[in-house]
Amino acid sequence: MHLYQFGRIKADLATQKNELTQLGFPTKERTLSDLARATFALFEPQAHGDAATREAWANRAVDDDTDLATWLATDRDVIKRDNFYNVALQYLGFQPRVDFDQQHPRTFMKQTGLPYQDADINNQDKFVSAVYLLLNTRTVNVVTLIDALAAKGLLNTLPERFTFFNGKSLPTFDTHQIIREVVWIESDLDTDGDGQRDMLEATIIRPRVTDKGVQVPALFTANPYFHGTNDQDVEAATHVPEPTLQVKAAGTQPAATDADWHPEQDQLPHREVTDTTKTASVFGDEPGIYSLNDYFLARGFATVYSAGVGTRGSDGLRSTGGPDETASAVAIIEWLDGNRRAFTTRTGHTAITAWWCNGNVAMTGKSYLGTLAIAAATSGVPALKTVISEAAISSWYDYYREQGLVVAPGGFQGEDADVLAIDTYSRQQAPGDANRVKAKWESRLKDISQAQDRQHGDYTPFWDVRNYRHNVAQIQCDFVSVHGLNDWNVKPRNVVKLHEALRTVGSSVHHKMFFHQGQHVYLNNIQSLDFADQMNLWLSNKLLGVDNDAVNALPDVEIQDNVEAAKWVTTPDFGHGTGVTNRQFQFGTDEPTAEFKDESTAIFNAEHDTSDSFERQIIQPDSPYSAARLWLPLLQADQDVVIEGTGTLHLRVRSDAPTAIISARLVDIGSAFRLQPTASIVARGNYPLGFDWQYENTLEFAPQKQPNAAQLISFSHANLQNPVDGATAVTVNPGEWVDMQLTLQPTRYHLPAGRQLVLIVHGADMAQTIRPTATPTITVDLKASHLDLPFRNDQD
Amino acid sequence: MHLYQFGRIKADLATQKNELTQLGFPTKERTLSDLARATFALFEPQAHGDAATREAWANRAVDDDTDLATWLATDRDVIKRDNFYNVALQYLGFQPRVDFDQQHPRTFMKQTGLPYQDADINNQDKFVSAVYLLLNTRTVNVVTLIDALAAKGLLNTLPERFTFFNGKSLPTFDTHQIIREVVWIESDLDTDGDGQRDMLEATIIRPRVTDKGVQVPALFTANPYFHGTNDQDVEAATHVPEPTLQVKAAGTQPAATDADWHPEQDQLPHREVTDTTKTASVFGDEPGIYSLNDYFLARGFATVYSAGVGTRGSDGLRSTGGPDETASAVAIIEWLDGNRRAFTTRTGHTAITAWWCNGNVAMTGKSYLGTLAIAAATSGVPALKTVISEAAISSWYDYYREQGLVVAPGGFQGEDADVLAIDTYSRQQAPGDANRVKAKWESRLKDISQAQDRQHGDYTPFWDVRNYRHNVAQIQCDFVSVHGLNDWNVKPRNVVKLHEALRTVGSSVHHKMFFHQGQHVYLNNIQSLDFADQMNLWLSNKLLGVDNDAVNALPDVEIQDNVEAAKWVTTPDFGHGTGVTNRQFQFGTDEPTAEFKDESTAIFNAEHDTSDSFERQIIQPDSPYSAARLWLPLLQADQDVVIEGTGTLHLRVRSDAPTAIISARLVDIGSAFRLQPTASIVARGNYPLGFDWQYENTLEFAPQKQPNAAQLISFSHANLQNPVDGATAVTVNPGEWVDMQLTLQPTRYHLPAGRQLVLIVHGADMAQTIRPTATPTITVDLKASHLDLPFRNDQD
Repeated sequence: MHLYQFGRIKADLATQKNELTQLGFPTKERTLSDLARATFALFEPQAHGDAATREAWANRAVDDDTDLATWLATDRDVIKRDNFYNVALQYLGFQPRVDFDQQHPRTFMKQTGLPYQDADINNQDKFVSAVYLLLNTRTVNVVTLIDALAAKGLLNTLPERFTFFNGKSLPTFDTHQIIREVVWIESDLDTDGDGQRDMLEATIIRPRVTDKGVQVPALFTANPYFHGTNDQDVEAATHVPEPTLQVKAAGTQPAATDADWHPEQDQLPHREVTDTTKTASVFGDEPGIYSLNDYFLARGFATVYSAGVGTRGSDGLRSTGGPDETASAVAIIEWLDGNRRAFTTRTGHTAITAWWCNGNVAMTGKSYLGTLAIAAATSGVPALKTVISEAAISSWYDYYREQGLVVAPGGFQGEDADVLAIDTYSRQQAPGDANRVKAKWESRLKDISQAQDRQHGDYTPFWDVRNYRHNVAQIQCDFVSVHGLNDWNVKPRNVVKLHEALRTVGSSVHHKMFFHQGQHVYLNNIQSLDFADQMNLWLSNKLLGVDNDAVNALPDVEIQDNVEAAKWVTTPDFGHGTGVTNRQFQFGTDEPTAEFKDESTAIFNAEHDTSDSFERQIIQPDSPYSAARLWLPLLQADQDVVIEGTGTLHLRVRSDAPTAIISARLVDIGSAFRLQPTASIVARGNYPLGFDWQYENTLEFAPQKQPNAAQLISFSHANLQNPVDGATAVTVNPGEWVDMQLTLQPTRYHLPAGRQLVLIVHGADMAQTIRPTATPTITVDLKASHLDLPFRNDQD
Repeated sequence: MHLYQFGRIKADLATQKNELTQLGFPTKERTLSDLARATFALFEPQAHGDAATREAWANRAVDDDTDLATWLATDRDVIKRDNFYNVALQYLGFQPRVDFDQQHPRTFMKQTGLPYQDADINNQDKFVSAVYLLLNTRTVNVVTLIDALAAKGLLNTLPERFTFFNGKSLPTFDTHQIIREVVWIESDLDTDGDGQRDMLEATIIRPRVTDKGVQVPALFTANPYFHGTNDQDVEAATHVPEPTLQVKAAGTQPAATDADWHPEQDQLPHREVTDTTKTASVFGDEPGIYSLNDYFLARGFATVYSAGVGTRGSDGLRSTGGPDETASAVAIIEWLDGNRRAFTTRTGHTAITAWWCNGNVAMTGKSYLGTLAIAAATSGVPALKTVISEAAISSWYDYYREQGLVVAPGGFQGEDADVLAIDTYSRQQAPGDANRVKAKWESRLKDISQAQDRQHGDYTPFWDVRNYRHNVAQIQCDFVSVHGLNDWNVKPRNVVKLHEALRTVGSSVHHKMFFHQGQHVYLNNIQSLDFADQMNLWLSNKLLGVDNDAVNALPDVEIQDNVEAAKWVTTPDFGHGTGVTNRQFQFGTDEPTAEFKDESTAIFNAEHDTSDSFERQIIQPDSPYSAARLWLPLLQADQDVVIEGTGTLHLRVRSDAPTAIISARLVDIGSAFRLQPTASIVARGNYPLGFDWQYENTLEFAPQKQPNAAQLISFSHANLQNPVDGATAVTVNPGEWVDMQLTLQPTRYHLPAGRQLVLIVHGADMAQTIRPTATPTITVDLKASHLDLPFRNDQD
């Protein structure tokens, strides 16, 4: 176990004393022992009164023979560090003998990454500093000790106001008294073409104390799934991977026009306001869906969910990431900032403002939710002060297409823009409402199905207008991105290309990036990292103006190691700058060329494979797909190396057909106990989000229980007719050499000594591309091909 | 999907009207349409005011062209049933087109088991009855419609008092205002031998309105795991399955003596009371662990958790189900009933009564928790009015031993009484406290390890005193048992033998039994059954005196079918009485004997099997264990048959060694899409436990996605030296015939036509018995052996 903590900031003694005093902690008593007694009493907030407190102390061991109650009963001039930390570790949730040796508590603390004072405690100021540090140290249950004590009632006597400790907001807001309400926000859109502005439903979850004049910031999660999904319709609409790869005409796709970005629409009248109110008319009966939002609710941040145009309760139609969905998210933010009107009912005239909001908004959420956060940020809407975007799409072409090919999100073969539009059109779940726009929706859906163009896979204006990276220059707010390095659903390219786009336009925005070893998951309950605490530092700064230097205090890039469990490293940038160098790999020595016949589909069918089993098999040294791939060893690592960044494969290739799918997989070969791609539950429901509030599970990525022989590091897919990108197709004559450039998914991969790095070149990817029945023979000119791969050289 | 509902009772029109009136529903208006409008307004409790209500109606479709708002605007003398149910189904959570056809709503209702009125609604009384029935109909989210509407705020204006509807308590208690407190109850025990009565910590979770004089019943869950488990120590203590089966001396074990049941102990002084209070001194910071308790908390039932002797915060030592653990659970009940003292601190003198409790207690919980409920019930403690015991142990011999053998709980090879004692000794997690009794605990643990006697596996007094069935005659309260028919951890024998013991002593106790298709799991969030609702009917009757005839209203036995998903059947008894007949199966025709060599351990090691893979392999027609078993076909089903009850295998057998393990497995052979043994999530977090309270997932047992060839139905294990039971061992001379009688685990198994019933006789069970390296040759006299198996003949 290792508990990293980047969200703790330095504070001088005066600040420590002020902050402790504010919480009711003593900082000066008659004697050091008096101070210790008064302090440890507050460490047992569940115990009311001296007798109960002493009993609680009696449960803690200072050593094998002495409990804390007995120990505190004796006055002493010096508190030995080991005594202090033997007890401190128990408050942090560790057990003597089981977790640590009471003879050497600091040995365990050092191994685990827990901070401690540098000497025995021989005066009251040193005790105060030790307590301040301890309260800001992480417990075994994700949160810091101050949060754990708050969960037992320590802060219940404080006023229900923002209270900051070590630069972060404390859970002082009463989650038993939450207001849940629904309003309808007037947008500038009329996506269902009824001549009326689309009204957007939003659910607000805010502390009741806002009714008494406390203004709070809002965490806004634009969640198209909030009101349910249409799973049965999705099943019917999911595409069967096509058996034929179409030959396409040469040419370059045009960029999206201004009309694509801003479709012309009639001048829309504003809804007349006949009345105003501070009280909503509809109770929000959907519970929150993201525990990080719930964690912040206890800390005074309201949560706002809106599912957007075309979802249940709202007007309009879905577009799978089109400009109207961006506008739909932005509208909510503008209302929160007082710059847009909203009503208590969808069709009524009683207006309601976000009078409880301080006008500062952050967006949160994963996947489509985080995607809309990127989208909204690229609008530059001023009230959006920051974004925490996780596993998000920055260009929908990078989600459903790749270099001229239809490529499915991992795990969702056959999904496409139209399928997702169907999935999120929850307006259908209000059938009385949906019946009224049935024809319009069917027509819109037909348009999407056609425009997405599964036949050719090109980067058309449909996709160009869904590439939020065009507008990164407009991003005004500092930005947090989280992505799984094993996320083959929303692939890492999305976050790294967003980051590169910011760099390209010379943006002054600070972009903090987290890369974990998971797939398509949240990060906030991973035990080894203090993600929620870091976000607290960040949001306290961005939305509440706390002067905690969050921008400099937090690392720029935090990356979870893929070899050692629970290990995180930091870098100043990702795959770029000092310490990162490119290495060029040549292929083969004896044979000038190598060829394979792409019979993947036939083998797939003969083996009765699934997408999952194909993905496993294609990378095994001994594989049913051996004849349908090239196996190109790159490196036998004689010492640990770290790949970091985006690799580029330069391939001179020919096909005996006018078209082909070319895929590349970078793999780590060698039997090893690698990390599991799914985090395991370390402890169920032990991570408290506030006082008598919700609990989360604590997770960690554990090593596999059985070794495996091969591990995917990265991959890439391309249409032979799109040798460089998805926008430009060329004509390929059978047998003609084509110089291709395939961009691998960016990664950070620690390849330990003794393992082999191998490049696999193959054809169709049964899990992600279509499944052609044609079997072209592909030849690679090995001498004229190479792989550029970035390595980080300045890290253990 | 099928939604069974046994917890709905009949009510006459006057009762319907009274109950509806009490909730604020109208029962008579100027016209039928006025009544419909006034009623449907209450069906949208999230909408406050006419405008919001009309909008909510507009989201419901009466048909493709008419929404509910439009439809209600027109006056009509008759409400067509199809119109009513088209809308009703939407309120129940179903979607037109996706779930049902609005042309024929009742077709879907019939398939799904939803009740409907028998004619169009042509007067107000008929409308009232239709509404009453609908409110008491199950939604897609486990609960009934009245509960679903309460979750949206329908009942928020009612006083915070018990309100019954259709015989069940409604969620009218404010779960935002819960008191969580800890008290220490004085027991009659001194298990840690310090001359002081063991004080038992209990956590109480009660509605705050109890402070205003509302007395409530208590659901008490005796949960040894409540304060954590010692997982690392368990890992170290878990036994390695022994390689040698000891030859034992002939003889019969003595029964437990009175001294075993009631160990002599010094007269213990009572703790002096110097003060009394109504206010506890310690906040209960552990969240509840069973969602059924949380469901009832909203309905006015307090929850009480106590982990018992030897757990964190309590005095004493663990004993794994010994009489002191029974006494420990009973003490809590006696305190709740005012017959035992408790204090606000563990060592203090301020007494506190359960002044908020109406003196009526039910116990709930699964596994060890449910076990202690059985234990407490056998004490006959008067305040215990009923028990809901799930997957519980009725005799610990049936958990850790079987007919003279050490047999592990499924999934926990190597676990034993000592391991579980270590696991639940959470007192250790208060190290300051545990250090004081370290030596006593080590000594107690040594005693358990010795007394459990893994060498011989006999039914010794250690086990006899842990057989709660001895005392079934003392059970005074009606009883609910729930058990998974695939629970190989706590095996079904435990519940069925408890039931048979009740029958044997002529108990007048009503014993309601539920058998589901799961393993070791709770039943309350399975979609197809209204378990929570039935328990509401039951507990409202038992703890609140509601005259709802629950004992007769609920079926005696509810059994989930293993072939058709979401199908439940009822029977008047389990495997007994009218409709159940025994069938005797003879083995073989040509060969008089058959033999196998028990090389299971060697094969297991050679195959690198795990317990799981062994269990899969041993029952396959083509198995690596083929030579180590007999395969005895019993029946090729030409029509569906239903096994129900306990089979007995009469086996004449000889071994070439003086000892051997004899196992039998009854299996269903034939490729089929059987139900998965683990229920799948149908919908995540959609089952509301109250208003703005917790949410549970909805689960259902779904068919497997791939067919499997073989399925375990039941099994049995015995020591050759214990031919009849675990108490009596005989000497076996190598080569000598032994007449054995093996009792299979009771089951209810629907064997469809076309499948084959096979008996497997084999030796050591790698998943459950020890793993001997000796390889005795076992011969079965087929002619002198037979299997008695009960079948139910009066059911589809």
